[in-house]
Order: sequence, then structure tokens, then C-alpha cells
Amino acid sequence: MNNFTFVKGGSVTSPLGFVAGGVCASIKPSNTTKRDLAMIYCECPCQAAAIFTRNLVKSDTIYVTREHLQNGVAQAVIVNSGNANACNPDGYEKAAAMCRLAAEALDVDENDVIVASTGVIGQALPIEPIAKGVDALKGKLTKEGGTDAAEAIMTTDTVRKEWAVQLTLGGKTVTIGGIAKGSGMIHINMGTTLSFVTTDAAISADMLHEALVEAADVSYNMVSVDGDTSTNDTLAIMASGLAGNTPVTEKNADYRAFTEALTAALKAVAKKLASDGEGASRLVICQVSGAKDEPTAKVIAKSVICSSLVKAAMFGADANCGRILCAIGYSGAEVDVKKIDVSYRSAKGEILVCKDGCGLAFDEDKAKEILLEKEIDILVSLADGDGTAEAYGCDLTYDYVKINGDYRT
Amino acid sequence: MNNFTFVKGGSVTSPLGFVAGGVCASIKPSNTTKRDLAMIYCECPCQAAAIFTRNLVKSDTIYVTREHLQNGVAQAVIVNSGNANACNPDGYEKAAAMCRLAAEALDVDENDVIVASTGVIGQALPIEPIAKGVDALKGKLTKEGGTDAAEAIMTTDTVRKEWAVQLTLGGKTVTIGGIAKGSGMIHINMGTTLSFVTTDAAISADMLHEALVEAADVSYNMVSVDGDTSTNDTLAIMASGLAGNTPVTEKNADYRAFTEALTAALKAVAKKLASDGEGASRLVICQVSGAKDEPTAKVIAKSVICSSLVKAAMFGADANCGRILCAIGYSGAEVDVKKIDVSYRSAKGEILVCKDGCGLAFDEDKAKEILLEKEIDILVSLADGDGTAEAYGCDLTYDYVKINGDYRT
Repeated sequence: MNNFTFVKGGSVTSPLGFVAGGVCASIKPSNTTKRDLAMIYCECPCQAAAIFTRNLVKSDTIYVTREHLQNGVAQAVIVNSGNANACNPDGYEKAAAMCRLAAEALDVDENDVIVASTGVIGQALPIEPIAKGVDALKGKLTKEGGTDAAEAIMTTDTVRKEWAVQLTLGGKTVTIGGIAKGSGMIHINMGTTLSFVTTDAAISADMLHEALVEAADVSYNMVSVDGDTSTNDTLAIMASGLAGNTPVTEKNADYRAFTEALTAALKAVAKKLASDGEGASRLVICQVSGAKDEPTAKVIAKSVICSSLVKAAMFGADANCGRILCAIGYSGAEVDVKKIDVSYRSAKGEILVCKDGCGLAFDEDKAKEILLEKEIDILVSLADGDGTAEAYGCDLTYDYVKINGDYRT
Repeated sequence: MNNFTFVKGGSVTSPLGFVAGGVCASIKPSNTTKRDLAMIYCECPCQAAAIFTRNLVKSDTIYVTREHLQNGVAQAVIVNSGNANACNPDGYEKAAAMCRLAAEALDVDENDVIVASTGVIGQALPIEPIAKGVDALKGKLTKEGGTDAAEAIMTTDTVRKEWAVQLTLGGKTVTIGGIAKGSGMIHINMGTTLSFVTTDAAISADMLHEALVEAADVSYNMVSVDGDTSTNDTLAIMASGLAGNTPVTEKNADYRAFTEALTAALKAVAKKLASDGEGASRLVICQVSGAKDEPTAKVIAKSVICSSLVKAAMFGADANCGRILCAIGYSGAEVDVKKIDVSYRSAKGEILVCKDGCGLAFDEDKAKEILLEKEIDILVSLADGDGTAEAYGCDLTYDYVKINGDYRT
């Protein structure tokens, strides 16, 4: 039984203590309408942690944020879209300048500011629009501003990603909320670009870090849109402690309840990221069961949703089982090919297309009906143990090509 | 100075002793015109070797061919398109039956027949059309038939791949020829689907195997269209010995000359495979120099040409350097990001877009002109040593999605 509930209309400002806002700062000069600069602020210093992209080429925002989180404390976030501030000679100075601007406007220590950027790589970040945007946001961060902040971090996203969950820790109601962006350049190693999570739970920075790693492992680390790992991926969390629960400082029952709720929330976000993948028309979830262990199940689930051929077949609603078997075969996982079953499932039903590693003749009309739905499960059963895993992806469409054929203009 | 020359109009039948042919056997009932069954025959038993897909899910043709090549001898090839004979309960029996049919028609030992299939995975292979096709080919294999054989192994290929090179070994003219197919499901681990190479050189099966491994390492193992490794990849070679050179049985100068020519030929085929990649409008070659060693250079070159985002940018002729840096960064290779230079080059010139790991402002019109060409080089310089590598890919286009959205129909 779940220990948590999703909060309707929840956002990064749902937890006690947090306000946020977003404005159009025209960081890309051509953008004069879409919000592209956001700040999140907490009325008190927070315990905080973050995990980052594993790409060797990193935005300087990551180096700055990492330094600022060394003491496990943060009080504000400043983040822009429209420019990734990556691969720039003055990237570090610009990232630090963003923190100073936020710190001055919010009257917090600049070392307590988390900074992030997303957008084009290798173009100088203009700091003037950011300074003006911070001015415009000053004094105007609100409880309702989570939605504007969620919009401000979007790039090719077509929908805002914001959420909150609630749980009870030692009789106290605790809320966790967040915003996220991500549509392209999404891959299994934290390929979510930017996510900011807040909570009013009392929990130490160390435990926040552990919880993030655990939750990301089965959510953000299991989602792929195009196999490209961003240079800017940042998943940060800040805990105000205002819920008044007994502080979580070790891996006790409260830690597990908190992490369970966080995991469920980030899994839901992972699905949103995949279904809003660049050009995607379908969410594709690969559920693997019966693997000899969980790592094996994960490797297979990820290989299936990452396959360009599987993704193109899903776009065409083509129940091609060869694509699935092929992707399992080259995943590197140890499996007994002769025990693989594959089914497709959606709201319209379920159909078995492969039994014991061999393709079956099946009702093509039924299969088409199932695969024309918006959310498709690819079920892989291995009869080899009790390892399970779930990975989140999307189809490969003309629009993905269109969006990325000329991303910069 | 090269020790070899390409033979204009050369094919798998160019070496002494070999004939071939191809017919339309309607292996897919809907196909009534395209050739889909080929045989290659040598007038004498050949020394032979082959290397295969590393996909765990393999067509049974691979198991049969591997058994037949255990003694290092082969005399004929039978190969069909239209059905991969993979993931079928009776795949092994059907593959063996194909060998028997060829052996009877050509009066050779069935254990001296190499068999291969390509096409849809997981559908039963109909043997009757193959029997009829073999009958039709019987007595009609010719020196000119290489071209028909090359056509018969095509699937989504838009051009035939056939070639021959000549070199001199100990005063004797030696010819190496081949046919290949491959367009989609092409990736760096031998992702070429099917290639048959013949030669009239006298060379032992062991040395043929070594030469294949060496040549494939820098050609077929460096080409990717979509990151998917086929279940059927087979690169086979047969040597008739009719050129009369002193037999090559160790890694001497003749072995090196032979392998050099074979490597150059397979590199040329790798480029053809990439430029004829499903839906491709451009051949994209990533040349890495200055890596700390060759393995590092290879990892980087492959990561760049495999990136969906790089591929989409190439389709759009978008000189986005961020995509390249990003792909280098997540390649897993050890590099000093601050020393990476990136240029684009084509017949229209060359343009530097990244210096010392930072994006440059550059002439967008010039860059567009360069990238609108049919063949694009992405030059990555690392200033870290003298490791070099070259990988072959293509752009990602609407047509790739279209072709694979409904491959089976």
C-alpha cells in the first residue's frame, strides 16, 4: 500500500517555505514571449543535494552548483533556458554571475544558490538579459509561481512538468514538489536535463543525496528519447524542514517512506519526459520480467526502448517482434534466447507476438489496434529468474528529425 | 604507395574460378520482380573463413555456416533476401535444407556450402520458392552473374554493392572481389548484414580469418546507420588459389599486402553502406586525430557518428558544434575537453566551429554551403597524442522513419 498521494495541481512551490517565478528575459534575442528565466526561493536555508550528468563535457553551471552544495546547504535556484552555457570560455564566470544576481535580489548568500542553464551549447551566454530578468522577478516570487518557473525551463518541451506528492512522516504531513524539463537529448544516465525538487521534510543533505540516487536509478536513469546525454543534466533537491517531522538523518523507516514517494514521483516524471520526447507520438514502456537479476532486466529494458528500429516500428504501429528480439540480443545481457516471450499491450488489449524466442503468426488487425494507442507496453518475459525492470521511451517520428534538423534557428 | 588497384566493374566473380547468379524466387510472395536468391560457386574447393554478428540472437544460418567452415573449406554460397530465417523454430533445418539444395544443384559437398539469409525476423522461411529458385539458377551461374547476385541480396539498399581489387603477390596477379548488402540495422559490430568476398589468391583459411578480422576492425566495425546490430551479419571469404601465388600461410609480407588491399576494399564498402543507409541523404565521416591512442580515437569517432542529434543536425545542414562536443563527452573516452577542436569539411571547403573545447562564432552561410554537400567530414582534433580513427555514418532523415515505420509491409 502506498504511503503517499499525488497532489492535484502540485508544483515546486507546494512544500512549505518555497516560492518561485519565471519571466521572459529574451536570453535568445528572437524570443520575446516565452518565459526563459526562473528563480526558486526558500524562506530559510535548506539542506540540499544534487546529482549531475555523467557527460565529460559539462556546462560550467554544474561546477558552480557542485561547489555551492559542498556544505549541503542552499536557499535559492536560478535557471535559464535558451542557452546551455556549455563549451564557452567564460562559462564559469557567467554561472557565478547568475548566482550573484540571484543572491543580491533574494538577499541570500551567493554560495547558497543553485544555478542551471539549458539550450544551445557553445554560444556565449548574455548576462544582461538575465540581470534584467532577475530585476523583474525580484519581490514577485509567489506560491503560484511554480507554474511560471516550470514554463521558463522548457526548451522543446510541449507540456510543463510540475508535480507534488504528500506523505506522512511521524504524524506530520510532508510535501515533495518539483518541476522538470526535458524532451530531447535524453538518455539513460540522468538524461533529463533539469529537475528541481523541493520538500518541507526535515532531512539531512546526506540522506537527500542517497534518496536522489536511489530514486533516479529506476526513473531518470531508465528513460531515453534519443540516446544523447546532455551536458547540463542537473537533478537538485532542497529540504526546508518546515513540516516539523523528526529529522531524517539515517536510512530508517522515514527515509524509506520519503524515498518511496520521491521515486514514484520521479517515475511519473520520467514517463512524462518520454511521452513528451521530441516529436514523440507515443509513450513506449518496456517491462521486463523473469530476468535472472535486476541489472539484467534493466539492461534489456533500456536496450529495447533505445533501439531506433523499435522506435520507428512503434511510430508505424508495426508489431514487428524481430526488432525487439534483435535489441535484446545485442543488449549485452545474458539471456536464454529460446525462453523469450514478447507481447504488446495497451488500453486496447494485449497480444503475444513471440513465444520461446520464435515469432508467432498473430492477428495483425488486433495488433494494429493495440499499437495505435498513445501508450504502449512492450512486455518481455524471460523465464530465467525474478529480476524485473521498466524503461521509458517514445517512438521515432518525422517530427524528431524536423526538430533536430535545425535546432539552433 | 598502394600495392593494389580497384578494378572497374569488378564483382564477386572477378577472381579466377568463381561464377555467380541471382533470380527472383518470390520468397516474399508479394515480390514478383526483384531478384532474391543468389548462388556463388567456385570450380574448386576453396580455403574459407567467416566472421559473424555478435548479437546473441542469431539466425540459424550462422550456426550452419559456422559448422560448415570448421574445416576451413567451402565451395559455394547460397543466400536469400526477403526473410532472415531468424527466431524461427525450424530455422536450423531450413538453413541446412538450403545448403542441400545448393549442393545438389552444384554437385558439391553440402558441408562446403555457406548459407545466409536477410530480411524479416521471426517469420517462417518458405523452402519451396528457394528450391524452385535453385532449379532456375542451376547451370546458369556465370562470370557476369555477380551483378545479379549483388542485386539478389539487397533489401532496403538502393544501390548494388560490388567491387574488386587487384594486387601482385610474388609476381602473380591476385584479384579480390565481393558483394555486400546493408542499409538499415547497421552498427559498429559487423553491422553489415551480408558480405561475400572471393579471391584467387592462394592463402590458408587461418590467414583468411586473420585478414578478415583485421580488415573488418577498421571498416565494417566503424560504420553505423542506426545503432542496431543485425541477427544475421556474415562476412565470408573464399580463396580459390587459382592465381598460382606462393600460398600465404603466415603473416609475411604477402599476408600484409593482401590484408592491406582487403582493408581498403572493405573501407570503401563501409562508406557505401553508410551513404546508402536507410533514408540517408549524406555520408558523414568522423575523422579523429590527436587522440592519446587508437582505441580512444575509435570510441570518439563512433560516438559522434552514432549520435541521433548529430545525425539530425547533418540532415539539416546545421553546423551545431554542441552536438559533436556532447557526443565526445558521453563517449566514455578520456579526453581533455579544453583541447578539442572541431571542423566541418566537404568539397566546398572547411570551417572551424570549435576551438579548445569552446564554440566559435563562424560564417553561417559558409558553414551551410559546406554542409549541404553529399559527403561531410567531421574533423575532431584532440592534441593529446597521435591516435587516429575514422568512422562512417549518415544523416537521420524523414525517410529513415518512413522506411522503418512499417518495414514488414
